Order: sequence, then structure tokens, then C-alpha cells
Amino acid sequence: MSMNAFGHLFRVTTWGESHGPALGATVDGCPPGVPIDEAALQHWLDRRKPGQNKYTTQRREADAVRILSGVFEGQTTGTPVQLMIENTDQRSKDYGDIAEKFRPGHADITYWQKYGIRDYRGGGRSSARETAARVAAGGLARAAIGALAPQVQITGYMVQMGPHRIDRDRFDWDQINANPFWTPDAQAAEGWASYLDDLRKSGSSVGAVIEVVARGVPAGLGAPVYAKLDTDLAAAMMSINAVKGVEIGEGMAAAELTGEGNADEIFMGEDGPEYSSNHAGGILGGISTGQDIVARFAVKPTSSILTPRRTITKSGEPAEIVTKGRHDPCVGIRAVPVGEAMMACVILDHLLLHRGQIGGNRGRIG
Amino acid sequence: MSMNAFGHLFRVTTWGESHGPALGATVDGCPPGVPIDEAALQHWLDRRKPGQNKYTTQRREADAVRILSGVFEGQTTGTPVQLMIENTDQRSKDYGDIAEKFRPGHADITYWQKYGIRDYRGGGRSSARETAARVAAGGLARAAIGALAPQVQITGYMVQMGPHRIDRDRFDWDQINANPFWTPDAQAAEGWASYLDDLRKSGSSVGAVIEVVARGVPAGLGAPVYAKLDTDLAAAMMSINAVKGVEIGEGMAAAELTGEGNADEIFMGEDGPEYSSNHAGGILGGISTGQDIVARFAVKPTSSILTPRRTITKSGEPAEIVTKGRHDPCVGIRAVPVGEAMMACVILDHLLLHRGQIGGNRGRIG
Amino acid sequence: MSMNAFGHLFRVTTWGESHGPALGATVDGCPPGVPIDEAALQHWLDRRKPGQNKYTTQRREADAVRILSGVFEGQTTGTPVQLMIENTDQRSKDYGDIAEKFRPGHADITYWQKYGIRDYRGGGRSSARETAARVAAGGLARAAIGALAPQVQITGYMVQMGPHRIDRDRFDWDQINANPFWTPDAQAAEGWASYLDDLRKSGSSVGAVIEVVARGVPAGLGAPVYAKLDTDLAAAMMSINAVKGVEIGEGMAAAELTGEGNADEIFMGEDGPEYSSNHAGGILGGISTGQDIVARFAVKPTSSILTPRRTITKSGEPAEIVTKGRHDPCVGIRAVPVGEAMMACVILDHLLLHRGQIGGNRGRIG
Amino acid sequence: MSMNAFGHLFRVTTWGESHGPALGATVDGCPPGVPIDEAALQHWLDRRKPGQNKYTTQRREADAVRILSGVFEGQTTGTPVQLMIENTDQRSKDYGDIAEKFRPGHADITYWQKYGIRDYRGGGRSSARETAARVAAGGLARAAIGALAPQVQITGYMVQMGPHRIDRDRFDWDQINANPFWTPDAQAAEGWASYLDDLRKSGSSVGAVIEVVARGVPAGLGAPVYAKLDTDLAAAMMSINAVKGVEIGEGMAAAELTGEGNADEIFMGEDGPEYSSNHAGGILGGISTGQDIVARFAVKPTSSILTPRRTITKSGEPAEIVTKGRHDPCVGIRAVPVGEAMMACVILDHLLLHRGQIGGNRGRIG
Repeated sequence: MSMNAFGHLFRVTTWGESHGPALGATVDGCPPGVPIDEAALQHWLDRRKPGQNKYTTQRREADAVRILSGVFEGQTTGTPVQLMIENTDQRSKDYGDIAEKFRPGHADITYWQKYGIRDYRGGGRSSARETAARVAAGGLARAAIGALAPQVQITGYMVQMGPHRIDRDRFDWDQINANPFWTPDAQAAEGWASYLDDLRKSGSSVGAVIEVVARGVPAGLGAPVYAKLDTDLAAAMMSINAVKGVEIGEGMAAAELTGEGNADEIFMGEDGPEYSSNHAGGILGGISTGQDIVARFAVKPTSSILTPRRTITKSGEPAEIVTKGRHDPCVGIRAVPVGEAMMACVILDHLLLHRGQIGGNRGRIG
Repeated sequence: MSMNAFGHLFRVTTWGESHGPALGATVDGCPPGVPIDEAALQHWLDRRKPGQNKYTTQRREADAVRILSGVFEGQTTGTPVQLMIENTDQRSKDYGDIAEKFRPGHADITYWQKYGIRDYRGGGRSSARETAARVAAGGLARAAIGALAPQVQITGYMVQMGPHRIDRDRFDWDQINANPFWTPDAQAAEGWASYLDDLRKSGSSVGAVIEVVARGVPAGLGAPVYAKLDTDLAAAMMSINAVKGVEIGEGMAAAELTGEGNADEIFMGEDGPEYSSNHAGGILGGISTGQDIVARFAVKPTSSILTPRRTITKSGEPAEIVTKGRHDPCVGIRAVPVGEAMMACVILDHLLLHRGQIGGNRGRIG
Repeated sequence: MSMNAFGHLFRVTTWGESHGPALGATVDGCPPGVPIDEAALQHWLDRRKPGQNKYTTQRREADAVRILSGVFEGQTTGTPVQLMIENTDQRSKDYGDIAEKFRPGHADITYWQKYGIRDYRGGGRSSARETAARVAAGGLARAAIGALAPQVQITGYMVQMGPHRIDRDRFDWDQINANPFWTPDAQAAEGWASYLDDLRKSGSSVGAVIEVVARGVPAGLGAPVYAKLDTDLAAAMMSINAVKGVEIGEGMAAAELTGEGNADEIFMGEDGPEYSSNHAGGILGGISTGQDIVARFAVKPTSSILTPRRTITKSGEPAEIVTKGRHDPCVGIRAVPVGEAMMACVILDHLLLHRGQIGGNRGRIG
Repeated sequence: MSMNAFGHLFRVTTWGESHGPALGATVDGCPPGVPIDEAALQHWLDRRKPGQNKYTTQRREADAVRILSGVFEGQTTGTPVQLMIENTDQRSKDYGDIAEKFRPGHADITYWQKYGIRDYRGGGRSSARETAARVAAGGLARAAIGALAPQVQITGYMVQMGPHRIDRDRFDWDQINANPFWTPDAQAAEGWASYLDDLRKSGSSVGAVIEVVARGVPAGLGAPVYAKLDTDLAAAMMSINAVKGVEIGEGMAAAELTGEGNADEIFMGEDGPEYSSNHAGGILGGISTGQDIVARFAVKPTSSILTPRRTITKSGEPAEIVTKGRHDPCVGIRAVPVGEAMMACVILDHLLLHRGQIGGNRGRIG
């Protein structure tokens, strides 16, 4: 209950269901004076939009965002910004079977158990369509970051699809926008294309790992002990539909390191401290170091598949289920812009929190 | 700022530094009528206490917890419970060198950059000593869970030390309390003992992976979209010192699954739905299914090691640093009771949140 | 910043400006299973709607509310409820003069000083139009109260206009809906009609005092020390536009009482404790007693008047200002349904909070 | 539940009971680098300390405050500051009678109804002793304000005792510390002395009105719509024990004003806008104007009196009660430093919030 919001000062409440009239984000706490318009937000929404290629759901949504409040004469006013996206392609007839049966691996059953009432049309509130609202809010966050700390750059990309990982030696920032998987490894993209094509044809699905990097983030962001930068990133990423794991820097592999291997040694550079490596993912003690912030998350495969699975009905009868709707064979693809949006919201939030301190006495080195 | 608290209704604010007069937890939102006394809390603190064997820091702390408020005649009153632990063994002279140099891989440098003032004695607020307060609060959470949902059992254990993982086929709940590593695999414990002994003697350190399981949790806990049960667990675990990754159920490995492999099929059992497997880790759409809640986190190695590392001083000069204090070669060991405490706080919090709903119309199956 | 929301569990964020495309309320935390539709909400909005008689602004707004999310098949689902009201009559040309000058007694100047950008059209965010969103949210709160505690009745009415107070001996609940001032004193209503007519014709305005009573509220609501029922009511009422004072029970007059005079003596009734009087306004120590909850607030006169006032322009030049727009001579009239809405939101919020407790051990008397 | 904290960024959680081992305040969000020590806090606590003259309770408490965390080498570190006051004079035997009977006008009965368990010793958590913790936190807030905005001055004083009001024409700032009632009207103080002496001897009590003024507060503080400066002040003041009404500027009397009378006309002064009057109490639209912030609150009389009152016992039997403990005939006296403390906390909180904005584009006039 009352739990559809995130952020400390830049506070985003998303609302709306997959097949209701509209969905959106109520953004409270955007600073005044940020230049913004609907076209700037639409740019980010278009990256997430379904139906753009054969690897994403064929549902056709314009995903056109409208700004209903908080912006006047091209600038934010400091009052709440309401971002609304109307649902246009609501073929709810596709979902008839799901109204009575629970999809294994899906939130159908837990929503029912919790609320006793369930909007079965396309998953209702549990649908990944909710993430469109996050991307809209993330677009606003990017605009505000642009005003506060223009050197910050936030980029997400896919580093693993099913068992296939990218080769870090082939990492190329310029490739990310050049393939349908937002991956920096062009060669991996080719292999994934045929792999996913086969999966799609067989009605199956597969998971993925997404990495999101924020470059240019100043040192000092993050508020220990329970609003650490990595704590907030972990919550933000884990709250995305289908995410089952979150990593910062070395992530789970940090368990295998020794103290020597883990220590990013420190040197004095021209503009401040520099580091020999970035095992920490840019965060020490929950506070940014000035290095790249590196977060990763794993997305499980869609539970909506063509292969029959055993399940039960609402009345407890055994049943078999096959999901015929329009679904993504790899939801991880569309999770890339969502991960970016969450990173943007968290970074902005901590930029704002950080401004609350007494100035002038922050630690200087050298 | 103002960010040292976690929880929605069961709200815990920890306070205190490694070498100040005391540290503790202010717990706001504990229900009234929960039987509790200091001995019950001490039981859990003793599991985390340093200096119990050669694998943990030799600092000697009684870690005796006092209840200063909120309990009357052996029961909680519904008012804030103040749990205080006095620091007794504060050999701050050990830390002289650190006052001027930054330890690579440690929060020394970021605290300095953020606050411009730093309590260098033993890491100050960034010290893992803070987790003693969490364990005290977790003990209170366990007591309240005992009153609300007595069937719930929360157990943590180590599943990986450095590169060495347990064998799940040897998993034995009874072994967990029978070795210094809280591991359910007795054979692994033997191997780890000699491995860690070598590391300790060489002044090095190593990471670990901890798993925490909550059994008996009813279906329906968790509040989508940003207070999902897994979202809150991810934040709770990531907020623990030195944690770099968090997983629920399959975790990062979910990326490698297909939709068929990931689907926990559903059957009707005597007491409600049952599942063929638990890839989901007991959580679907952020809401508990009634299966075991399974969370895992990776702890990086301590950055306080004897091997010299290159660093800089506060004035920006290059330097070398060796940390001679009393440190844990594998902080993951003492993170086990801390992980349990965080799980207990999150489960209790969601039990309380869940009670806010309109009763009687929750979904029944069958 | 990020401060446009109120409530602990029933959390309402209002958004929107006087002359933007729309305004509304994002309600997070409404329990599932509450029967609701747009007509039920419209009933309450129509009470606040402008242009209904000569005593309120002649701006013509349909104030038609739409439910965009959180309701499925006539019931709330437990997910966020988005309530949107489109602005239709936006004669912003009326406001040209105000763009450069500050109205004395109005938020024009402080919004400018705070944000450096100001939506001057009709006051932008500081307009009392924002309260339409509160009334919509209050309607939803009433519906949820109806499901949780159907005996609760919430009624607001005017007890003072300018210097003229009602006579408590003539108090008649049935009169409240029978006059344009929502006052229980029919004779006062007659006098106020001619008094206000004169004021309106002269282009002046006047203040008022509103009382809101909640009957049937169970004992035990309220969460000391900083979420007391009276604390939350004080904040809720003071947040309404133009309110300058808030009272519970005896209010400011409590200062004049002696301990003997203030003590509401206690007797045992058939259904529990009864009281000889209600100086406390139904709240002791921040917790409801089971008596009527009685809150009062004073509304200052509109600052938009025809009499010229001295002021300055944005460039600091001295100026004179006359406000010609369409304004209420006594904004207190339309504040009545707003006060009711705030009472409903606070009562529901505390009903939900109260459910979080461990049941069965609450105090019984007798 | 979980409701013992206030503030957005400067967040104070008070804890402790009247007759427990200790009470205190956990302050999360104090900026780093604020010079502070125990003596500076003690100064403010001594103003509130009981037993200083015959007009306050004869309970003898040292009220010595200890700083347990968050301060290092004389400065705040940015981590939580724990302020503890040990209870020393706990004559709980005085309260035997109250364990079974409820005092009319006191929270005894509602705490019992809510929690079903009650610390009857001196009122437990509902005792005004809790306000000692507020004063300690307020002392810290004053120190932080001193670092952020040193021109701000916060002063409270009594303006009414029972039916007797001060004469504003005799207002003299220098008198406030020169009499036991903290009143700026020396002549009123004389009259009140004999009035209260009589009341005290007869075992009765009386209410009072306190005014708190903050001078030097910059324009622009306050965050509409639900964290307005006056909204937060109303909540802060109403949360103080025994308070029944809160006013800003004209307060309840604003109802009697016309638009012409209420308009504080604006002129251009040397340092910015100036006003012909301050009906607004320094706040327009919830945002500070730069004028004095003026808040007032009414305190009801203590319900602990010697005159017998009719009541019931926990078992519902009719009874009579006389309270023999050591009580203040006018609790309003000791509420003066408490009101100052709340004002200090709210002002600091909004100074911190205000810093989160994008700089450079705030409105300039002239």
C-alpha cells in the first residue's frame, strides 16, 4: 500500500495499468528552471517503445507522453510535473484465458492472493507497461541533471543474453545504438539475432543482463547508511519488472577477490584523485568516488510462452496454460532504457540531496 | 543526510560510530504487547560478536545491549524502543596512520570528500561495528514476528568463501551452527578453515557469499511497485557494509534461463498452491508466494590488509599504506547474523504493512 | 521540493495549476475492494464547484473528474488511483496585469522569490483550484471509510463570517445543506447573505471560520508523538489555501480554562466510556477518544480585491494594483467541502495505520 | 506506529518515557561541520528544567544531556547525533492510584485503548518530559542555523495566561528573560505571579498562549503544497503536549478581516521588499516573505489537579480521582522553550530543503 513512489527529493510516483485509459508518472521535487518539453521526453520513450522490430512485442502503442502540469513557457516551475501516456492499443480480448488461470512465473497468482481483485488485462499493474512511466520520468531527470551537472552521461547496454556474454575487448560505445539489442559488442549482436529469432519462433523466451554506467558523476554523492548510492540503485533496479539480481562494480564476483585484488589503488591526478582500477563500481561506503558508476541487473525470461505449463485455476483446479498474447522473447532488450531511467532518477535525487549540506567545508584533497 | 533509517512501519534508525561512547538503534513502530527483554536480544548479538575465534577480529567488545525505552514489565508498549550498545574496547591509537592516508577500497576517501570531516578512529560511522545495532533491531523484529506469525523461521548461512562454493547436495540445516563459518556444508567448512588460516597469516582477506532464507512467510507480502518485497530486501542487503551484489532466487543466473526453465509450475496442495520448483525465490511481482524467501548477497574482502598498497594523503601526496589494526580476514562470516537481521526487519515491516488492507476480500484459491 | 503529498499510508499527491491543461490527485495506498465510480466522486466535487451562486467566483468549470487508474470493474484494485480534472475555462487574458505586479497578501511574491519562475495565470499552483484535487481524493477516502468503518460521518460547516458568529443554540444539522454558506444556523445565513452581497458589490472580501466534525470515529486512532491525530489534522487544515489558524476542541480558548473546567469527566456507558463534555474535541494525547472529532480553521479574505493597494513590480518599481478577475468574496464558503475532504483523508489514514497493530491485546475497559 | 519522528531533512526521532532509564532524541540529517558541545545544548535544556521556581513541578531532574554520537572533535560529522538524558528522579510510587484510574483530560485512557498496555508511571510516553528531548534537538538545530544563517533569531514568550493577556504596547524583548513566565510585559508578569500563586495553592491549573517569533529568516523558505512553512509549523506546535490551537500571523482573527485590512502592502526597501504590516505572520502561500515568522499556540491546563473529578477504572467501575503528584500549575511556562525548539527545527529543515534547488535562477526583485 502507498508504495508506488521512489526517491527522496526527486520523488516519482508511477500509476496506471496495462489496459486502463492511461498511465503515467507524478514527479514531485523537480527543481525549477529546467528547460523541458514533450519532444525531449518522447525521445527517450521512443527507445523503449514496443513493436519496433521483430524482437519486441508487436503491441502497437504510440506511447505519446503529455505534460499536464509543472511546466510553463518551456521550463519547469518547481511544482509537480504530471506525465501522462494514454493507452491506445488495448486488445484485452487476447487475455481471456488468463482471467481464470495463473501463469507460472508471473505475478498473476500473488496479486490475486494479496488483493483479492485483479486486473487480468495484460497483467494490469504488474505489466511491464508500467516502465513507460519510468522512462518518461527518467527523461525529466536527465533534463534536470543537464542543468545541474551537464558533464554526467548515462548509458545502458546489454552484456548478456541467455548464456551468451559480450566480449569486453570488443566493447565499443558507438555500437550501442547500432543494433536492436543495445549492445556494445557488434559481433555478439549478430549471434544474438539468430539465437533470439529461433527462440521467438519456438514461442520461448530468455533472460538477459543489462549494465548501466553513469560517467562524470562527482565524488560525494550518497547518504549513508540506508540511503547509500548503491542501496538506492539496488532498490531502483530490483523494482524493475522481472529483475532477480543487482550488482555494483564487481558484484557477486567480489566474493572471489582477495583484499589485494579488490583494492583500487589511488593516485593524485590533475583534477583530483584517480584510481588504478574500478572494482568498486565508483562507490565506496555508499558514496561516489568520481569514477564511473557501474550497475548491472539480471532480467528473467518472460513467463508468457507458447509451451504449455501446468498450473491451477482460481477455483484450485489443475490446468494447463499457453500464453498467446503479444510478448517479448527477451524483455531484457526493452529493459535497457528503463535501467537508464532508474539510474538517472537516482543520480538526480542524490545530486539534490547533496546540495543540502553546509558548503565550503567539504573535504578537499591536495 | 537524514538517511540513517530504513523500514516503512517498523522503522529502524541506527546511530553511533566505531569508537564513540556508544552506538545503537532507535526502533519506531514496534507493535505493542511483544514479549522482549535484553537477554533475548543478547542471544543474537552474541552470534555476531567479534573475537570469538581466530577467524574474526580480535577486538574484544562485550556488545551488551541495553533497552532504554519502549518496554514496560517485559512487553513492548508501542512507543520507540531505544537499544544501546556501549563501546568498551576503543584502542584508537591503532589508527593513527589512517588519519592522514586513505585506504584503497575503503570509504575513508569518500567520507572525507562528502563531509570534509572524518572520524578516522576505526572508520567512524562507516565501520562494520554499525551492524551490531542492526542485529539488536533484528532481534526485536524476530520477537515481533514471533507474536504475529510464529511459523516464520529466518536462517542465514555462508555458501561461498573466495572461489570455494558449497555443494548443495551436502546441505544440512543442522550444520549451520556447528562451524565457525555458519555454513550448511560440513566438508566445505573444513576446507575453508585451512584456506582462511593461510590468508589470515599472510595478512590478506577474502570475500564471501551469504544466503538468507525465510521459511513460513505467508503469501501476499510485498507492496508493488517500489516497495516490493524483493526491492526492500535488495536495499536492505546492499546497505550492509562491503556488499556489492544481491540476488533473489535464481539471481544473476536468471539471465541464462528460458521461459520454460524459469516457470515454477503450480499445483493445488492441501493448504493452498504449491510449486514444482522455486526459481523465483518465493517472490513474484514483488509479492511473496508462500514459498521460501531466498536472498543472497556478496561481501567484498576487507580493505584493511597487511600488504602495502599505493594511495595518497589528505594533502594529495603519494603514499603507501599498510593497515595494522585488528580486522576480519573474511568479514562475510560476521555478515551472516547481519543478513538475518535485515531479513527479519523487512519481513516484519511487510507483515505490518499487509495488515493495513481491508480484510475479508483477499484472494482465496479453491 | 517533493512536498506535494500528504498522508502516511493513504498518500495523496496533488498536481496541476489553475490554468494548465488539467489538475488532479495521485492516490497511493487506497485499500483494494472499495466500490467507487466517477459519479460518486463527482457528488463531492459539485459541492465545491465555482459559479453556483453569486457568492462564489463566476469562473465556470465543469470540474468533471475522471478515474484513470486503480479501479477495475467498479472496485479499487489496491494500485494507485489517478483522479484527473481537466481545466476548461481558462481565461488567462484576465491576468495580464498580475504578471508584472505582486498582489499584497498573495503568494505571487513568495513564489517568485522562491522559484524565480512563476505561472502567473490565475495564481498557477498557488490557486485555490488545487483544492478541487483534494475534494476528489476526499471522495475516495470517504468511500474507503465507508468500507472500513461505515458508522463514520464527516460534516463541515461555517461558524463565522467576518465578525459574525453563529448562535450554537440554533445549531441544526439539517440546515447545513439548505443555504449557500453551509451553515447550521439558518438565521445567521440570512444575515450573512446581505452582508456578503454588500461586500461583493464593493469589490471587497472577508474571512471565515469553518468547523469540521467527524462522528462515529472509534477510540484509538492516532500515533504519538509526531503523527498524533490532532497533529495530522493541524497540518492538513493549515495546508489549505488562505488558512491562518487551526483549533481542536476548545482551541485557542483552552488557554482560558482551569484544570477543573477542561476535564471531560468519564462515565461508563453501554458501549464503553462516555464523557460529560468534549473540551478535548475527541482527542487526548493525540489519540481519538470515541467522541466527535472537532476541528476548526480560519480562512483569511481573498487578496484579490477591487480597492487599489500599493505594491511593487518585478523590477522593484512602486505601483498600485487592482484585481479585476473573477473571485470569491468569501473563499471560506468553498473551503467547507475542502475541510471535509482533508478530515476524510486523515481519518482514513489513521484507520489504516491502526490496523497495523497486533490485534487482541488492545485495551478493553470493563 | 513508527510515528515518533518529524522533519524532512533534519529528522528528529524522540524516544523515552517519563520514568524509564533515559530519554532522548536521535537526530538524522544534521549537516557536517557544525560546532557543538554538550554545554551549548545544556544551556537550552536548563531553560526548560523543572523545579526552578514555585510555578513549575518540583520534580528535580538534572536534565543533563549527553552526546553519544555524530560529533567528533567539537564538530558534527554529518552522521546521526544521539542526544541522551538520563532520568534520575523517578519517584514512581507517587503514581500508584493512576495505574487503575484514568485522569479526565489526560491521555491515560486513550493510550490504554490504543495499546492495551500502558506505562502509568508519570504518564509514560505521554508525559511532557518527552519535550526535554525536543529542546535538546532544538539546541542542535540552533547551532546548525548559526552556521547556515547566523542572522536568524528565535524567541518564544508567553502572551496570555488564563484570561489575562499581555498589553502589546508594553512589549519589551529585554523583559522576556527577566521573569519566570518568559513574558515581554513586565506588568503582566506581576499580575500573573499572584494569580498563579493562588491557583497553585488551590491545587488547580490553567492554560496559556505562547508566541514564537523567528527574525531574520530569508524569503523563499517553504515547500508548497503540503510542506508549506506554516503547515510544518502547525504540525510541530500541535504535536507539543496539551496544545489545542495553532495560529500564524493574525491566526483565527483573520476571519474578521476584510481583503483591504488583510493586505500587507509592499514597498521597495534597500535590501528588498518591505511591508506596511505583518498580518501574514511572515508567510504567504506557505513560503516565507522575509518578515518575522510569527506562530502562536494555546496550551490547555494540566489535567493533574487536586480537585476530585469523576472517572472510571480499567474495569469500568465509577471512581473519583485526585492527582497528588508534582505538577505544573501552568504547563505553558515550560512550553516556551519547547515552542522555540520546534520553531528552530522547522526553520533549519526548510533552510536545508531550500538548498536543494537549482541556484542562480531564483527570483530577484529590482
